[in-house]
Amino acid sequence: MAVHYITSTPQVLKLLNSLKKGQTCVITDHHCLEHCVAALFDHPERFDPKIFTFPAGEINKTLDTFSEAIDFLAQNNLSRQDQIINIGGGVTTDLGGFVAACYKRSIPFINVPTSLLAMVDAAHGGKVGVNHGKLKNYIGSFTTPSHTIICPEFLNTLPKEHLLSGFAEMLKHGIISSSRYWDTLKSSSIENLSPSNWMNLIEESIRIKTEIVQNDPLEKGERKKLNYGHTVGHAIESHLLHSASPVHHGNAVAAGMIIEAHIAMSAAGLNKQSVEDITNQIIDLYGKVPLEHGDFGALIELMQADKKNHSDSFRMALPKKIGVCDYDVPVNAELINRALLYYINL
Amino acid sequence: MAVHYITSTPQVLKLLNSLKKGQTCVITDHHCLEHCVAALFDHPERFDPKIFTFPAGEINKTLDTFSEAIDFLAQNNLSRQDQIINIGGGVTTDLGGFVAACYKRSIPFINVPTSLLAMVDAAHGGKVGVNHGKLKNYIGSFTTPSHTIICPEFLNTLPKEHLLSGFAEMLKHGIISSSRYWDTLKSSSIENLSPSNWMNLIEESIRIKTEIVQNDPLEKGERKKLNYGHTVGHAIESHLLHSASPVHHGNAVAAGMIIEAHIAMSAAGLNKQSVEDITNQIIDLYGKVPLEHGDFGALIELMQADKKNHSDSFRMALPKKIGVCDYDVPVNAELINRALLYYINL
Repeated sequence: MAVHYITSTPQVLKLLNSLKKGQTCVITDHHCLEHCVAALFDHPERFDPKIFTFPAGEINKTLDTFSEAIDFLAQNNLSRQDQIINIGGGVTTDLGGFVAACYKRSIPFINVPTSLLAMVDAAHGGKVGVNHGKLKNYIGSFTTPSHTIICPEFLNTLPKEHLLSGFAEMLKHGIISSSRYWDTLKSSSIENLSPSNWMNLIEESIRIKTEIVQNDPLEKGERKKLNYGHTVGHAIESHLLHSASPVHHGNAVAAGMIIEAHIAMSAAGLNKQSVEDITNQIIDLYGKVPLEHGDFGALIELMQADKKNHSDSFRMALPKKIGVCDYDVPVNAELINRALLYYINL
Repeated sequence: MAVHYITSTPQVLKLLNSLKKGQTCVITDHHCLEHCVAALFDHPERFDPKIFTFPAGEINKTLDTFSEAIDFLAQNNLSRQDQIINIGGGVTTDLGGFVAACYKRSIPFINVPTSLLAMVDAAHGGKVGVNHGKLKNYIGSFTTPSHTIICPEFLNTLPKEHLLSGFAEMLKHGIISSSRYWDTLKSSSIENLSPSNWMNLIEESIRIKTEIVQNDPLEKGERKKLNYGHTVGHAIESHLLHSASPVHHGNAVAAGMIIEAHIAMSAAGLNKQSVEDITNQIIDLYGKVPLEHGDFGALIELMQADKKNHSDSFRMALPKKIGVCDYDVPVNAELINRALLYYINL
């Protein structure tokens, strides 16, 4: 798997052209088609892929969309010698990667993440899949793209809330494995970063994630560190997904990081000052997600259904200090309740 | 992956008990539930798995059944520390294996094949998946069970036509890699085989398949030999699946082996005597499948959609002589037409 760092979209097209083999099918959502993909392939005489699109949003990362994509590939008679290019955010790279993993028992694919979240997280590490009702990523596999193309120019089209979504994962990378990177991120204002600043930060995040994943691709041990903030974060995201006020993945994870930092204080020895540091930094950037006391039961039930949890106990990845993270730490429901309470009272 | 050869069903239960870990969910079809599974677990105080069932038949090896199985596992809160046991024929091991591969990005599973076809073929080699409309195994992956349990006692419940289905794959194993085995099979009458004869033949088939798969698990080269009879056979099976007279997988493959043997005469140098030997042996056992001249176009179209074919040409696994097989042999539509004609005129 090669990661390519590219500074402008015309160069992305050039690279895609050089990687072309057989027929190409692009998987993208309606929104990204309009904002990125159409411009990318505006010279059909040079590169004219088949394009499968689906309505944007996590709510469409379903087995139904998966099935429609398989239909599309079959209708276009794509073979194992051809390739898929996933262009879009994490929903697209998750869904498109799973389609590529399963279509004819796998055909090669390239990821072109266009959101910050996908650039630093979703498009790397091989986790692909779809949701199943309220259950996030319940259906999926581990499958690696042959190439991933990072071009920060795509970030220009993104509203701030989308940048924040990805930035949450970057903060996570700092908290779990580099206090130096955490300090750099704290002093970075995402509204004023130059493209080359972005490139440097994104590279550092990819480096951290890739190193962890290479040591433990199937998440038997160390890779579980990457779940910091996610046990609680996924529950929040799932719980609010079908509500009147769904939240972005990053906002859910940001809230999850605060709540799990509070849990880490009792369960992993994270000191109070670091919990406050994490809380302040995140509240400053993200504000709060709309949780109430009445949601706690449903959230804990969702955590129980989390695919990383045993049926009878909770296990979490929790920082011992900023830059060092433990995993498989046993946690009980009371600690979770107390941390949720801490969060809603902020 | 361990294969266990067991002589009686009470010992199967004993072995399953010793392999038990966490919660167990059995995946099986209605027919097999009645004929095998209910008797196997008739002492619920000793072993009382959750049982997911679906209507028997290739036509139910779909994404819908897959989705229902995922629902069932999620409702029972199965975790990655638990396990699935697939009990049944090839439809069940294909479907159940794919469910296990994708549920929470894979949980461990055990195969207990109860049909001859599944014992000698489907339950081994890691190919799992479901059909997509008329397209066989269009959605799937390569995933290996932790254990496979072979018990010929299950064959007692099977009608002859089901035995023949599996026997076709055994004949294939002989043709592609052992003339000695082919001769043994020719002199065996499937109606008069003792359980220990069955065990020996099944072991030899598994040995042949396993050796080929181990050399090339992802089917980049040598494994393609196992497709002998299947390019044409799958097309026949798919074509007739939704017709008034669907045929068993084995009958379709048997017909495919005759037709591909005829193609092999021109394309791989198989001598006429061997083509006749294969034809006579198969017609003797299987008779003919209901094909007419009017079906040729649809069959060739289905072969074009076959996941092993490039978009613009046909590639087949073809025997050069009995016991030696070539693969990726280029074949044109005219040769296929001529061989189909040979078959319908038999």
